[in-house]
Amino acid sequence: MVRLLSALVLLAALNFGTPGVSVAQSSSDADGRVVEIEVPAPALVGNLLGTSDIQDAAVYLPPSYESELDRRYPVIYLLHGIFDDYGVWLKIEEVAARLDRLIAAEAIPEVLVVMPNAGNKYGGGYYRNSSISGKWADYITDDLVDHVDAKFRTIASEESRAVVGHSMGGYGALHLAISHPGVYSVVWAMSPCCLAATDDFGFGNDAWKRAASVESQEDIENLLANQDFFAVAVLGIMSAFSTEVGEPPVYADFPFDMVRGEVVLDEAAYDQYLDSLPIRQVRAARDDLRNLRGLGIGVGLSDQFLHIPPGTIAFSQRLGSERIPHLLDVYDGDHRQEVGDRLETLILPWVGARLTLAD
Amino acid sequence: MVRLLSALVLLAALNFGTPGVSVAQSSSDADGRVVEIEVPAPALVGNLLGTSDIQDAAVYLPPSYESELDRRYPVIYLLHGIFDDYGVWLKIEEVAARLDRLIAAEAIPEVLVVMPNAGNKYGGGYYRNSSISGKWADYITDDLVDHVDAKFRTIASEESRAVVGHSMGGYGALHLAISHPGVYSVVWAMSPCCLAATDDFGFGNDAWKRAASVESQEDIENLLANQDFFAVAVLGIMSAFSTEVGEPPVYADFPFDMVRGEVVLDEAAYDQYLDSLPIRQVRAARDDLRNLRGLGIGVGLSDQFLHIPPGTIAFSQRLGSERIPHLLDVYDGDHRQEVGDRLETLILPWVGARLTLAD
Amino acid sequence: MVRLLSALVLLAALNFGTPGVSVAQSSSDADGRVVEIEVPAPALVGNLLGTSDIQDAAVYLPPSYESELDRRYPVIYLLHGIFDDYGVWLKIEEVAARLDRLIAAEAIPEVLVVMPNAGNKYGGGYYRNSSISGKWADYITDDLVDHVDAKFRTIASEESRAVVGHSMGGYGALHLAISHPGVYSVVWAMSPCCLAATDDFGFGNDAWKRAASVESQEDIENLLANQDFFAVAVLGIMSAFSTEVGEPPVYADFPFDMVRGEVVLDEAAYDQYLDSLPIRQVRAARDDLRNLRGLGIGVGLSDQFLHIPPGTIAFSQRLGSERIPHLLDVYDGDHRQEVGDRLETLILPWVGARLTLAD
Amino acid sequence: MVRLLSALVLLAALNFGTPGVSVAQSSSDADGRVVEIEVPAPALVGNLLGTSDIQDAAVYLPPSYESELDRRYPVIYLLHGIFDDYGVWLKIEEVAARLDRLIAAEAIPEVLVVMPNAGNKYGGGYYRNSSISGKWADYITDDLVDHVDAKFRTIASEESRAVVGHSMGGYGALHLAISHPGVYSVVWAMSPCCLAATDDFGFGNDAWKRAASVESQEDIENLLANQDFFAVAVLGIMSAFSTEVGEPPVYADFPFDMVRGEVVLDEAAYDQYLDSLPIRQVRAARDDLRNLRGLGIGVGLSDQFLHIPPGTIAFSQRLGSERIPHLLDVYDGDHRQEVGDRLETLILPWVGARLTLAD
Repeated sequence: MVRLLSALVLLAALNFGTPGVSVAQSSSDADGRVVEIEVPAPALVGNLLGTSDIQDAAVYLPPSYESELDRRYPVIYLLHGIFDDYGVWLKIEEVAARLDRLIAAEAIPEVLVVMPNAGNKYGGGYYRNSSISGKWADYITDDLVDHVDAKFRTIASEESRAVVGHSMGGYGALHLAISHPGVYSVVWAMSPCCLAATDDFGFGNDAWKRAASVESQEDIENLLANQDFFAVAVLGIMSAFSTEVGEPPVYADFPFDMVRGEVVLDEAAYDQYLDSLPIRQVRAARDDLRNLRGLGIGVGLSDQFLHIPPGTIAFSQRLGSERIPHLLDVYDGDHRQEVGDRLETLILPWVGARLTLAD
Repeated sequence: MVRLLSALVLLAALNFGTPGVSVAQSSSDADGRVVEIEVPAPALVGNLLGTSDIQDAAVYLPPSYESELDRRYPVIYLLHGIFDDYGVWLKIEEVAARLDRLIAAEAIPEVLVVMPNAGNKYGGGYYRNSSISGKWADYITDDLVDHVDAKFRTIASEESRAVVGHSMGGYGALHLAISHPGVYSVVWAMSPCCLAATDDFGFGNDAWKRAASVESQEDIENLLANQDFFAVAVLGIMSAFSTEVGEPPVYADFPFDMVRGEVVLDEAAYDQYLDSLPIRQVRAARDDLRNLRGLGIGVGLSDQFLHIPPGTIAFSQRLGSERIPHLLDVYDGDHRQEVGDRLETLILPWVGARLTLAD
Repeated sequence: MVRLLSALVLLAALNFGTPGVSVAQSSSDADGRVVEIEVPAPALVGNLLGTSDIQDAAVYLPPSYESELDRRYPVIYLLHGIFDDYGVWLKIEEVAARLDRLIAAEAIPEVLVVMPNAGNKYGGGYYRNSSISGKWADYITDDLVDHVDAKFRTIASEESRAVVGHSMGGYGALHLAISHPGVYSVVWAMSPCCLAATDDFGFGNDAWKRAASVESQEDIENLLANQDFFAVAVLGIMSAFSTEVGEPPVYADFPFDMVRGEVVLDEAAYDQYLDSLPIRQVRAARDDLRNLRGLGIGVGLSDQFLHIPPGTIAFSQRLGSERIPHLLDVYDGDHRQEVGDRLETLILPWVGARLTLAD
Repeated sequence: MVRLLSALVLLAALNFGTPGVSVAQSSSDADGRVVEIEVPAPALVGNLLGTSDIQDAAVYLPPSYESELDRRYPVIYLLHGIFDDYGVWLKIEEVAARLDRLIAAEAIPEVLVVMPNAGNKYGGGYYRNSSISGKWADYITDDLVDHVDAKFRTIASEESRAVVGHSMGGYGALHLAISHPGVYSVVWAMSPCCLAATDDFGFGNDAWKRAASVESQEDIENLLANQDFFAVAVLGIMSAFSTEVGEPPVYADFPFDMVRGEVVLDEAAYDQYLDSLPIRQVRAARDDLRNLRGLGIGVGLSDQFLHIPPGTIAFSQRLGSERIPHLLDVYDGDHRQEVGDRLETLILPWVGARLTLAD
């Protein structure tokens, strides 16, 4: 948590330069470059959290992109985690340099890599469609994909499109595979949050109570001022998962009531909430998940978010019981420290090998 | 939690009268009566928490006890939960009146029911042997059993002795069956805490961090003054489960370090801690558990302590995978509200039917 | 298996007397009596196995039934297992004598107990609606219940009606609770078969291959002549579970093909088959299962049918994960030897205590 | 099964040439070559099945082996499945050509690959130490490793040694990692048999009964003559897993008795047998398994041996619950058809990347 908040502060202090201009200076012709773009987001219009309907993204263009002007490329989308933005991929995980190395070693074909921003005032919209936080799933799968396919020389087909995400973005990758099948043919979730309601993602975490006790805008400001990260994240989760729109300023509809400081479940709402988590959706989505060319999930055993290791392993087991092919990568490491290395040594080559290179 | 603390305050205000004197006035000759006793507790000598080595207990004597002076009786021990004492059985769960009714209806044979106190300044010693909080397991299975068998006309054999507990006491009943086999032949755990390290009994619960941050006696006093029940309970848990004795005033050895506000696991200590939980001990104890005449566990699905339903159900599954007979009772209800009714309609008759009535 | 077949032969040799005439001679006025009835079964008309549309049943009438002519009674239905008929309840499990004892001891209220026959040439129709083996679920829940409520002084409401079954009948009790909610309010499954496709109920059992290799009437006759019990049972299972009607004489549609002696799964049909098993239906049925007044399942750890212990325990776990109250009874014993004792000491009293006694 | 037996017949008809002579003709200097060797097997002396104490093996020598005479190489051991021998690796899976391609593409470092024979008259000794079938674990980890390290220019250390196996050999790789830690640092099990006693590896498989009914040498000959593959395999399993030596000609000690054609478990022996399966040994072996540089398991969802997919997935879950890093690869495919492709595209590169290349 502390580390994530530090990363947030760090990222806020970075100056990414003008959108559309290369931010990663090529050290040689053999390197790709990164451009920033602004993407219209009609799917976010009308959200109740004040999130802009124009969103930034970064795009890695491979080495040959500027010289082979008739060539089209497969695309990998990278989805960031809560309180992150695309800077995490570029500055912390050094994705551009890793791609350069992999392409030079022919360990991955030349690909475009698109890194959208997907944050809001509560840390993010969980890549879900919500009446409160906006239709982030539609933004990513429709608005952004169409924009990228129009603006860049991509191979605009499912067989040449992958999605990889970390934490909230790992959840997002799986959620989009389930809720929006037919867009991506390869999916990888790194340290995915929110797959099952256990441990610190269950109501045993007092943050749920603190978030559920919010009644005014002032209460929200206090949580932010106190850097009560987890309680703010709960507001984001509930904004993204609520099916009903409640009263301002919170709008979100919690699946329980607070009675004298205790959680008292609303059984029907709780059922509905649990059913919206990926581990409960595997069976209904099994044909779509089986049709993927690649489905991978990975987790570090020392993840600071305690629900992520058991949630990931339980998700793999559920996939197995529904006879869905997948790769599970369980490794030593925490929520973040192995992300860049894992991308370079396992995930990006594995994803790249499954993408169709020509129309 | 709030309810438990209220119960604590309520109980503290009760005056149980002079030990050894009947506290429940018989309404008729057909009713039993309750006496209070003081029990020497050599097993607690030398504990580091200042817990007395003389402990109180209440004993229900069945209706015929005073008239059939040659008769001997089987014994059921009832183990209370954290921050409770035997008053919870007598005042809240009305155990004496329930026993009177069951005996009158011949739904249970005449039995003695022994209700020991097992509290300390952190809420309790978890019925475990500890260099910090004292050898509570030895106190219950040796000192108390010997004292009761000497003082009352019991059938002093395993076949005529049962143990039933609630919450910390439910954990205790299972722990004693595993760690001290051969004392009780029938065991029932109601809403047992602490079987598996999940949900609010995992380190995702911030109370672990608050407890682990305690450095001085003043910090402890502050937790108590703030009624930070869960953090105090963690001090009790760690006092009971630590295998090493650390520095005063806490003494307990946490299986993790706090690094900049985050939990960083000590892998070896964490393994050892996890292995000390009952769900990990089923296999080694399977012969003893199979030899029981009765083993039951029950839980309400709306338990406020979120680890207790999944922990209980997972424990049942583990028992099954080790081929250990048992009864699992999963019901609507919370941590406490069904306890008295469950005792009367299911548990006490089920336990009573499995006890040998004669030497 | 051998034991079951022996029981079958034994039962075939018994003469149950004229339907409608008491078969159990009352030893005193305090005992109930058993009558046999013929029940029209329009739900079975058109089945392809030649099963009669008139079915026998036995009915236990409690002691006061003949003397208290205005009194109405709750009803418990007992569903037998494969290759059994109601004789198993009366002759082997001695249900009438057990009911007499329980009623005399006031351990159960006075109840009617209805024991239908539900066999066919393959051992039984699994209490399912099938285009091949007939609509057994409708027969039991509609034809039979209506017939009993019309002919006897029952309390004709869900709150006063329970269903208990053994083996195929244990499966049946759960299946009817799931597929025909609102008929019974208390359900108990003893040693239920067919909950999950594992062990000897999975395709690893060569009986599936032998059954799937049947092509002619002569092949069927050979299986019967060879007392290949399990292969015949598979024909019964496939007749009951097939959603498509295939070619005579087998009609059943297996979810796999035999290719050079090996099972080759038909993925879509296999999915559909797996989804028709109770363990996959808990989630969709959870509201109905939660509305029950009592749901119990039990199993002996040494069951000869190896899928029954793990299937039962896994079913309990699934119930727990869907927050459905239930009682799980895991005991020493095999498929049959504890059935009568379990009925008397646990199940019938537990069921009886949950039935409404008056309109 | 049919396919495996066919492979057996096929392999028996092949002529592998003189031991010690290259069997794979290099098509160019860039290719490696395969030599066959005879290995003394003192660990097999005294086995009761007549298995020779001299065993054959094949060794792949990488392209530079003959020209860089001071260079030492890491070693990968490949363990074959039941009724196979090293021909399966060379003729069916074309391992030499795959290694040539991988080395040429620098997808794997230059390595020696050792393919021992490990069969006996029942199909194999399961790479276990047994008083009946011989000390195969010691043969592989001691005799063979020492022989290879003496005869070839290997890097003779754990960090430069891996073991990969298929089916019985997949079981073997995991068993050796558990029973003989410190020999291999990277382990991969492909479609491993025998991890857990479920489905066709449980006693629901009639082959157990057929094997347990063997009383004479003639009975054994009949099983072989009838190509009753699974019953013969059970004799091999029981020979390898028995801790006691029984009567000839079977010697093996089954954990159950046959009573009137039914399996009646010997509880203590059954416990001991179950405890000898890898899924029960993960906890005791966790420190050794955590110390591995790589641990991978994979399975095809359409494996003909029905216990292998659920056993493999359950093993992964058990690894996860003990916090042991590993990779799980669940794919479309059956017991054998994907083995070669999986080796080339995933397993050999993954293993190679984890081996130390220099002393």
